Amino acid sequence: MSHPHPDLGTPPPLAEGGLRIVALGGLGEIGRNMAVFEHDGRLLIVDCGVLFPEPEQPGIDLILPDFEYIRDRMDDVEALVLTHGHEDHIGAVPYLLRERRDIPIVGSKLTLALVEAKLTEHRIQPVKVEVVEGERHRFGPFETEFFAVNHSIPDALAVAIRTSAGLVLHTGDFRMDQLPMDGRLTDLGGFARLGAEGVDLLMSDSTNAEVPGFVTSEREIAPVIDEVIRTAQKRVIVASFASHVHRVQQVMDAAANHGRKVALVGRSMIRNMGIARDLGYLKVPPELIIDSRDVEALPPEDLVLICTGSQGEPMAALSRMANRDHPIRIAEGDTVLMASSLVPGNETAVNRVINGLTRWGARVVHKGNAKVHVSGHAAAGELLYLLNVTRPSNFMPVHGEWRHMRAHAELAALTGVPRDHIVIAEDGVVVDLVDGRARIAGAVSAGYVYVDGTSVGDVTDFALKDRRILGEEGFISIVIVVDSATGKLAGGPEIHARGSGIDPDMLSEILPQIERALENNAADGVADAQQIRRVVRRTVGRWVSDTFRRRPMIVPVVIEV
Amino acid sequence: MSHPHPDLGTPPPLAEGGLRIVALGGLGEIGRNMAVFEHDGRLLIVDCGVLFPEPEQPGIDLILPDFEYIRDRMDDVEALVLTHGHEDHIGAVPYLLRERRDIPIVGSKLTLALVEAKLTEHRIQPVKVEVVEGERHRFGPFETEFFAVNHSIPDALAVAIRTSAGLVLHTGDFRMDQLPMDGRLTDLGGFARLGAEGVDLLMSDSTNAEVPGFVTSEREIAPVIDEVIRTAQKRVIVASFASHVHRVQQVMDAAANHGRKVALVGRSMIRNMGIARDLGYLKVPPELIIDSRDVEALPPEDLVLICTGSQGEPMAALSRMANRDHPIRIAEGDTVLMASSLVPGNETAVNRVINGLTRWGARVVHKGNAKVHVSGHAAAGELLYLLNVTRPSNFMPVHGEWRHMRAHAELAALTGVPRDHIVIAEDGVVVDLVDGRARIAGAVSAGYVYVDGTSVGDVTDFALKDRRILGEEGFISIVIVVDSATGKLAGGPEIHARGSGIDPDMLSEILPQIERALENNAADGVADAQQIRRVVRRTVGRWVSDTFRRRPMIVPVVIEV
Repeated sequence: MSHPHPDLGTPPPLAEGGLRIVALGGLGEIGRNMAVFEHDGRLLIVDCGVLFPEPEQPGIDLILPDFEYIRDRMDDVEALVLTHGHEDHIGAVPYLLRERRDIPIVGSKLTLALVEAKLTEHRIQPVKVEVVEGERHRFGPFETEFFAVNHSIPDALAVAIRTSAGLVLHTGDFRMDQLPMDGRLTDLGGFARLGAEGVDLLMSDSTNAEVPGFVTSEREIAPVIDEVIRTAQKRVIVASFASHVHRVQQVMDAAANHGRKVALVGRSMIRNMGIARDLGYLKVPPELIIDSRDVEALPPEDLVLICTGSQGEPMAALSRMANRDHPIRIAEGDTVLMASSLVPGNETAVNRVINGLTRWGARVVHKGNAKVHVSGHAAAGELLYLLNVTRPSNFMPVHGEWRHMRAHAELAALTGVPRDHIVIAEDGVVVDLVDGRARIAGAVSAGYVYVDGTSVGDVTDFALKDRRILGEEGFISIVIVVDSATGKLAGGPEIHARGSGIDPDMLSEILPQIERALENNAADGVADAQQIRRVVRRTVGRWVSDTFRRRPMIVPVVIEV
Repeated sequence: MSHPHPDLGTPPPLAEGGLRIVALGGLGEIGRNMAVFEHDGRLLIVDCGVLFPEPEQPGIDLILPDFEYIRDRMDDVEALVLTHGHEDHIGAVPYLLRERRDIPIVGSKLTLALVEAKLTEHRIQPVKVEVVEGERHRFGPFETEFFAVNHSIPDALAVAIRTSAGLVLHTGDFRMDQLPMDGRLTDLGGFARLGAEGVDLLMSDSTNAEVPGFVTSEREIAPVIDEVIRTAQKRVIVASFASHVHRVQQVMDAAANHGRKVALVGRSMIRNMGIARDLGYLKVPPELIIDSRDVEALPPEDLVLICTGSQGEPMAALSRMANRDHPIRIAEGDTVLMASSLVPGNETAVNRVINGLTRWGARVVHKGNAKVHVSGHAAAGELLYLLNVTRPSNFMPVHGEWRHMRAHAELAALTGVPRDHIVIAEDGVVVDLVDGRARIAGAVSAGYVYVDGTSVGDVTDFALKDRRILGEEGFISIVIVVDSATGKLAGGPEIHARGSGIDPDMLSEILPQIERALENNAADGVADAQQIRRVVRRTVGRWVSDTFRRRPMIVPVVIEV
């Protein structure tokens, strides 16, 4: 099995006729999926998603792939293929289009509708190429073919890419629900046909590679949701992803069954379900939906609310209900149904929401105590099916953390892919498919690009390190005014601290020490601002560390008058 | 069911002959367990533990109960009963003893040995009262009786407290393993005897009240651990809690079975297992243990290392191995066995460790993929047994978050405890047992007391709020020097920013705006330092918000020369 070496260098030029693959996101992490394919000097991109930040990325709104690798080659991009409409596959599209507005966006009807709604918010009118499963489209030297896959959003696609270097199958995200809600099965037959033709490289979704067996059919959730709504005493509040059309459909069906009206709560839920309804993916009986502003007019037992916030997002409706900071006030007898996964990293936030809702008297039904969610990603048993029908010569696990990609690699080895034809790569690792063999050829920069407020990329890892220190320890600033003519102290030192938890009275104890240190320093010779800053930082830092065993940020400011 | 009302006031004086119970921790949270019992003007405390901080408490080392409620009444404390030796039950004892050194500490042999080792580090020599199950001890007006309970540490006790107000049973933490490793069963017979006598109030561990059924016997883990060690190719590194004597015993037995030596890694692991061995709780064959500095001399296949870090603690051995920041370097073929629970809140950290270890080639066995851990807390099935044998007149769930206490209350109601005799309290809620009825009587302050470095309580929620702002947004400081004689600007404005992610060149754009604002302000009349600060804060804050949609901390500093 090939692993990226820690000090991979710049790759050599791609061999004539070869295919180069560089993931700018999605390998070693769950999110910001983006793979760049290069052949004959041209580029094809598959997906362009965002990653949501973890606690070590404080204050960050979104994390984007770093486009640096292709920044100077935007004109070489033939197309951007979007496999489906989840944020971790389409969320970074507006930022990519800022680099070049007319990159053709290729995807299914629903995917294009969702990305277009997003681009409208960014005031971008995209160039769209709508495709359906079974079709072939040529983009420059890339001959693509699309296959239906089942996932937790309708209309998802896998893409096969044919070049003279060989045939690559990229699954996107998928599972193999054999009784899908919309009857649209993952196209195992199509994949078998590719297998017969000869798949030179399989790139397949690793998210659930550690999970043994098979994902339960989405259909099996319906009776559980129905039972929750049937037996609920008062209001039912359902939290779900704003893109999970089939889950929302099941909730609406159950509400209609039991004579309850449905109100959608939250901007993204209302927008996406509007799109899904307009395009026919969501079937809504007339009169079922009421406006969320009218819910107080209905008796609680006649109502189902569908909202976002299933991941404990602090600003979402559900968190605000848990904190009594929302017009909808949870009361004894209400039922909250969290019909969603628990995305790793969100456990603490979700737990806080469940405790808050429970405290106000709600019964909370979640995947921990009822079968109200199934994953959108194929488990190990399904991944084996795919490996066995495609019989790839080379395998590259994608979309997952290290643990998932490694588990997926082991599955591939079990089905007979030779271990030295399995490539585990990370973001930025360059994989070349040449003469039928996939090999690691080098690495390019593929770091995190942070979106914070309106700025993209201004917040660096350096600023984040500062935030972590400030967030854990606060800061102490010491202002000193120096007479620029004489070089003598003209004012201060004045000392300020925030978040340090150090008593201001104790802080003032350090002033004589600073003054003494400055005098000694002056006695040693010339004192420039930089030297004063150094002396002050050392004196204060040592005192705080010795006295409190803490390391706040020390910020000496020397100002000349 | 009684719930605490959000605006409970100071309680009235305790009725003559009544028993007052105030939990200063452990209700509404998992950790810092501490219950204060008052009768006839005297106090008895059960447990005194710490809570480990969550991400919203950045930089904090430990969270203690607030002793304010009893600070003026330390002389009324008859004794501190410790139910067992886990940190969330004994960790705050050194801080309580700072208030009064000679409070008698009551506990079993192992519990006292563990707390004594801790107190030695704080240079405190405690007054100890060693007790064993089956014994009765009188502490002032409190007649106590101790019962064996099985938990994830040996020698745990439940305590019954008899006063003229009635009989209270406090379970401590427990489970009902029917085939315990040490043969020491939870004393169901003893509890039945109390039930026959009449339990006026049951206070019982709620941690696993949401988990249906029964906790598997600790014994069933042994064959799994044995198999992991038998089939491991190279080194086996086991991560476990430093107090889990029986788990460590199982690992040592398996290592001995397969001819491997064992090295203990980490200060707390070495210390606690030394105590357990000296007291006969851990049986270690001679020659099994080697010093961790000698591990390189042994072939990897002859070695088992036992370390801490199973919760992803960044400074623990396992995290450092995952980051290649530890003398023990993980290599392809090594096996890491995380034989422990995953404490809520630690998911992200543990996931990072698993990914890091996997990246270096280790196979990681954890509770997600093998039966290598069982909980120390009774599940719903076991809790029903306890409720049925004790048949309490009143019930108060303890040790758990809201969701757990509420689930436990439902279990009590199912066994026939009248709903209006069930009291769900929070930390600081005052519960009085008077005339055979437990009722909420008011509330006292029971906030978090933070330990940060060497200081206790200096870091307040106010400082933490500052840390959160600084950690998410950084700060911008603006220094202005004013001539104290003329009131005119004598230097600056100088602007500094850290963690804000705002380009220094852009920052300087705001300087003319500040100067203009100061001029306008001066034109309006007298400008004192406070007014200048206000103007500067408003000007800079508005500019940052408009330009970047961010809210860093704005720190104006006015210095007079």
